[in-house]
Amino acid sequence: MKHVAVRNITRADSTIAVSLGKQGASTVHEAQGRTGIMKPYMRPIYSGARIGGTAVTILAQPGDNWMLHVAIELCQPGDILVVAMTSENTDGFFGDLLATSCQARGIKGLIIDAGVRDIADLTDMNFPVWSKAISSKGTVKNTLGAVNVPVVCAGVVVMPGDVIVADDDGVCVVARRDADDVLAKAVARTDNEEAKRVRLANGELGLDIYNMRPRLEEEGFSYVDELSDLGVFNGIDCTGGNK
Amino acid sequence: MKHVAVRNITRADSTIAVSLGKQGASTVHEAQGRTGIMKPYMRPIYSGARIGGTAVTILAQPGDNWMLHVAIELCQPGDILVVAMTSENTDGFFGDLLATSCQARGIKGLIIDAGVRDIADLTDMNFPVWSKAISSKGTVKNTLGAVNVPVVCAGVVVMPGDVIVADDDGVCVVARRDADDVLAKAVARTDNEEAKRVRLANGELGLDIYNMRPRLEEEGFSYVDELSDLGVFNGIDCTGGNK
Amino acid sequence: MKHVAVRNITRADSTIAVSLGKQGASTVHEAQGRTGIMKPYMRPIYSGARIGGTAVTILAQPGDNWMLHVAIELCQPGDILVVAMTSENTDGFFGDLLATSCQARGIKGLIIDAGVRDIADLTDMNFPVWSKAISSKGTVKNTLGAVNVPVVCAGVVVMPGDVIVADDDGVCVVARRDADDVLAKAVARTDNEEAKRVRLANGELGLDIYNMRPRLEEEGFSYVDELSDLGVFNGIDCTGGNK
Amino acid sequence: MKHVAVRNITRADSTIAVSLGKQGASTVHEAQGRTGIMKPYMRPIYSGARIGGTAVTILAQPGDNWMLHVAIELCQPGDILVVAMTSENTDGFFGDLLATSCQARGIKGLIIDAGVRDIADLTDMNFPVWSKAISSKGTVKNTLGAVNVPVVCAGVVVMPGDVIVADDDGVCVVARRDADDVLAKAVARTDNEEAKRVRLANGELGLDIYNMRPRLEEEGFSYVDELSDLGVFNGIDCTGGNK
Amino acid sequence: MKHVAVRNITRADSTIAVSLGKQGASTVHEAQGRTGIMKPYMRPIYSGARIGGTAVTILAQPGDNWMLHVAIELCQPGDILVVAMTSENTDGFFGDLLATSCQARGIKGLIIDAGVRDIADLTDMNFPVWSKAISSKGTVKNTLGAVNVPVVCAGVVVMPGDVIVADDDGVCVVARRDADDVLAKAVARTDNEEAKRVRLANGELGLDIYNMRPRLEEEGFSYVDELSDLGVFNGIDCTGGNK
Amino acid sequence: MKHVAVRNITRADSTIAVSLGKQGASTVHEAQGRTGIMKPYMRPIYSGARIGGTAVTILAQPGDNWMLHVAIELCQPGDILVVAMTSENTDGFFGDLLATSCQARGIKGLIIDAGVRDIADLTDMNFPVWSKAISSKGTVKNTLGAVNVPVVCAGVVVMPGDVIVADDDGVCVVARRDADDVLAKAVARTDNEEAKRVRLANGELGLDIYNMRPRLEEEGFSYVDELSDLGVFNGIDCTGGNK
Repeated sequence: MKHVAVRNITRADSTIAVSLGKQGASTVHEAQGRTGIMKPYMRPIYSGARIGGTAVTILAQPGDNWMLHVAIELCQPGDILVVAMTSENTDGFFGDLLATSCQARGIKGLIIDAGVRDIADLTDMNFPVWSKAISSKGTVKNTLGAVNVPVVCAGVVVMPGDVIVADDDGVCVVARRDADDVLAKAVARTDNEEAKRVRLANGELGLDIYNMRPRLEEEGFSYVDELSDLGVFNGIDCTGGNK
Repeated sequence: MKHVAVRNITRADSTIAVSLGKQGASTVHEAQGRTGIMKPYMRPIYSGARIGGTAVTILAQPGDNWMLHVAIELCQPGDILVVAMTSENTDGFFGDLLATSCQARGIKGLIIDAGVRDIADLTDMNFPVWSKAISSKGTVKNTLGAVNVPVVCAGVVVMPGDVIVADDDGVCVVARRDADDVLAKAVARTDNEEAKRVRLANGELGLDIYNMRPRLEEEGFSYVDELSDLGVFNGIDCTGGNK
Repeated sequence: MKHVAVRNITRADSTIAVSLGKQGASTVHEAQGRTGIMKPYMRPIYSGARIGGTAVTILAQPGDNWMLHVAIELCQPGDILVVAMTSENTDGFFGDLLATSCQARGIKGLIIDAGVRDIADLTDMNFPVWSKAISSKGTVKNTLGAVNVPVVCAGVVVMPGDVIVADDDGVCVVARRDADDVLAKAVARTDNEEAKRVRLANGELGLDIYNMRPRLEEEGFSYVDELSDLGVFNGIDCTGGNK
Repeated sequence: MKHVAVRNITRADSTIAVSLGKQGASTVHEAQGRTGIMKPYMRPIYSGARIGGTAVTILAQPGDNWMLHVAIELCQPGDILVVAMTSENTDGFFGDLLATSCQARGIKGLIIDAGVRDIADLTDMNFPVWSKAISSKGTVKNTLGAVNVPVVCAGVVVMPGDVIVADDDGVCVVARRDADDVLAKAVARTDNEEAKRVRLANGELGLDIYNMRPRLEEEGFSYVDELSDLGVFNGIDCTGGNK
Repeated sequence: MKHVAVRNITRADSTIAVSLGKQGASTVHEAQGRTGIMKPYMRPIYSGARIGGTAVTILAQPGDNWMLHVAIELCQPGDILVVAMTSENTDGFFGDLLATSCQARGIKGLIIDAGVRDIADLTDMNFPVWSKAISSKGTVKNTLGAVNVPVVCAGVVVMPGDVIVADDDGVCVVARRDADDVLAKAVARTDNEEAKRVRLANGELGLDIYNMRPRLEEEGFSYVDELSDLGVFNGIDCTGGNK
Repeated sequence: MKHVAVRNITRADSTIAVSLGKQGASTVHEAQGRTGIMKPYMRPIYSGARIGGTAVTILAQPGDNWMLHVAIELCQPGDILVVAMTSENTDGFFGDLLATSCQARGIKGLIIDAGVRDIADLTDMNFPVWSKAISSKGTVKNTLGAVNVPVVCAGVVVMPGDVIVADDDGVCVVARRDADDVLAKAVARTDNEEAKRVRLANGELGLDIYNMRPRLEEEGFSYVDELSDLGVFNGIDCTGGNK
């Protein structure tokens, strides 16, 4: 790995990033064709946070948070730190002091494929973090990594300047070039969902709204009246029915 | 697997199901002889929910939520959806739209051995879910499963019509035929616990309440005065004591 | 294993234990040279609890909570139960009845490398627990273990009488002999952090406060202006830049 | 749980069980409609074993192998022991002595959702085991379970007398009532595969043998000539192609 | 996700790919600056295989192996199939029939972030596979993915045409553009190691060969004569020494 | 943590260590009262190795193998390296060069709660390793740990000079002070097992050899003739029997 930091990155439009954040991770993930979602082990340290911003990326070594200090200097208000690891690690890379520094520079949150600590303080500070673990285990500043480079964080490629959308459902990444297009699709999807919600709330069935019955039949799905019609199913003899 | 849905299932008595729900998963699990509890990875998406209802079962394929739509049509008020998988998967099978449809039909909650999404909305809607994961990852409607068939969900057999009890401790299943008997035992257990609680609150010891001292001695348990009496224990030399 | 309980243990000073508790797991862990922290899978059953106390240790067999009853008799106000296992297990060893007994005797909390249940009740009782799992699965009282012996709990050695510090970040153990020294260092560290927090809040960078720039250069860390300067990085061709 | 052993069980025909064993777990699993396969964490202790036999089932408590002794008495030549657990456990329930006893009674192998030990001896004895773990950790004989009852082992229902098929791919269960039907389908499937194998070996494509091209087109699958036609894919800008 | 296959990809030079294969995953990973290694859960189905080739990439849906058939048509002799997933899944995507088809077309092996089956046959065929799991669980052909697109497989970016190096240590990916440079460095490293091996075999110490003593001292590392000099270490009182 | 190495350690008698090795991990673990066994994730890199020796302990930082070089200098023929970690890590700390150095100094093997690499070479060299993972991921030499200090490795306390017994079943630790006593008990146990093996091979039952029948009855275990006598068991209605 080259041990380097990239000074100038092209960021996605901040207004678009914020708007994508409001749409939420699940909607945005669907809007861009079911891609960009990090693995589900990435969980928020407290519930209710929902952010959208631009990625400043970090590739860090296990047990070493040196690069976070390098990255903070290169951040702008509206950025989100995205920390990827060279190998799996759960140490506490980030706590209340780094969060203080982040907030002083307008950084909106942290996404880290490792651990964080000082959870109570971060919650009081209202500084949102999505992480793989919570751990008091401290880190050192001995081994170089890289900043503002392409990374794979929790299974997803993140380029510096990409849009990060994070909420209680998890973390979704939108490529900078696609941001406006994805936002448009997300908004359309949300509007479209509103209509469906009303129909479903009135008791209509997805089976009918999505016209699934013909395809079910075509695929060979059948209805039977009683459990006893199943014979043996999943290793259980149902011939006696469940009367 | 037969791709089939069973239209008519015999449900446990709804009053009994609701009463079992009030007893809670741990009490009910004990009352039926320490059986029926799902694996502990099944966690509620928000704390404080406690429900009891009758199971409508679903066997779904990884990444495919088609069968949920089929199942909802077959539900009655007081039912709880139980989704088992043909193989391990953490995708987001269920979100706010399906929850809207469920609530419109009186479904009380969801138990799923996979993932869910729109957590913030489900919480606002007060629609409780116990799941293996939280994930934005969307699903398709391409591959058939089955509805109202015997399933194994998180390690436990669930027959359609069985009672589901779920709370902050997890999820417990009660066979329809046993429901009233288990309820009686659960109530007795709860009453019995009340008396013990008072004695324990007054400082009495379980050692005495349960008369454990004779059995401890009989099994060869002994007391020593000092750590130094242990010699080497668990690889640690205690001969110096811990003075 | 010897099946034995040690009656008399030398406890760390209770005032020091309480003071260490106020410092929190992460600070204490750092103050004693980044040691003593349990594995991060040990999580609190509710957030916001922060305790410090003296350890009464238990070595229990999988699925068997007999030794907890033995241990409670040997506790003093200010103690914390620490339950280690002879092999991995997630059963629910502890619930509201045992918590009632613990509170009656002034026990401040429970650390267990297994499961607990009656989460809702324990939360209402404000009895804090840090555990590996939450599970309704009941336990028996058939197989002997040991009490007030050296144990390894979630990867850390705990001697009876050691100080346990637990909060939202996890669980840290301080050896009895080191307790006052670690407290002094923790306090000093907290004071020292205050000064840094102010500087960071004012926008100063860790890079400058910790004088990292020379070492970065010395280690060969370099800055480039554009992504295109990276060539291929992490398998991604950056020569086109991200304009 | 009732603590009971069932003396007389109806076994699947032993000839059919042996024949199913020769077909192997993957073929049999397909032949019965992709059901009956245990979770993939069930692995053989040595490679190359392939067995088919009838299940004698055991429900055991964590850390306690008492019930295995009860079960062996109830076995007949051609049986396979299937051990399910009341909760997750990796202790070493079975070793060379129990294997000696099993072989003396014609038992063909062991399937256990826990741990085994004496691996080197079991391999020398040519006694095959499929387990969740390998562990020296010993067990006790203190807590009752049950024998020849319905169990869920590694996610699959096993009734006493069912057919167990196990090889390097894993473990598959066939319900007694379905055994002959599944065998017929398995044999047909194997024959059918032979023909396909020849065509594939000659370089024919699955795309053509299974006539997939029309459906690919119908579903909207498309071919492009160059990577640059992808634009941004998976967060990576491909517009520069990979020339 | 676009459902698309790229027909023409630029492959790394096949001679270089084969030579990199001979160097092995660990050496190649070091030679390119400790990057490109897949997560360690990727294990070979049999030991002793060591291959180098060019990647044809597949992005597949959970439980669905349709895209493998599309990919095989686009392969050339010397290629290696690399299958990434849209979400975690352990189903058996690949068996002896697909392996027969692969060998007929000169494909050298398979890397899959999911499961495989027919292990015994694949071993007999000498067709090497590195996978996340072994599972009999079958797959369907219902949901589209993509072929020859950028993927993230087991945590690493793979572009079509990149070099794959796989052996008993795991799987390493080398970007096409870097292949010759990395090969040169790998060869140099191997030569360099030869000299070191001789010195180490003669009893020289790494401490001296790498001149570590000054840095140890500079970093504050110290030697003591006896365990008793440690005081309390890792929670264990060593003042008694271990005499 | 103090960054220190202890020069002089008191080792267990080498003859006893070798004899314990011959007894194997499972027998030794039983002989010392079912203690000292490392977690079952510690697996050998190749099967068939069985060693006994004296521990030289290492406490290492994630991703950093510097301390291994320090430790090798302090080893004597017959020693076994035991590497514990300050936090969980799977990097490849050890390969063929370090193994060459170890063999040159008479070190018999490696136990590491992390990863190793060059598996094929280590196997050819017949240098046995028990590890948590196999990984090509390289390590650095930047962060200090400690050597010949008390460590917790895979859940077990290891003091420098303790006996390590490792084979296909896993790794067992015997405290130096207990070594001769444990050896005596292990030998007695092995002799005792011989007699049992003969009886079991002759078809006698453990039920009779261990006189279990009275205790089964006393504990309330009962026999029934038919499955139908079970009623509902594990959620499955058995009233129809399995005829």
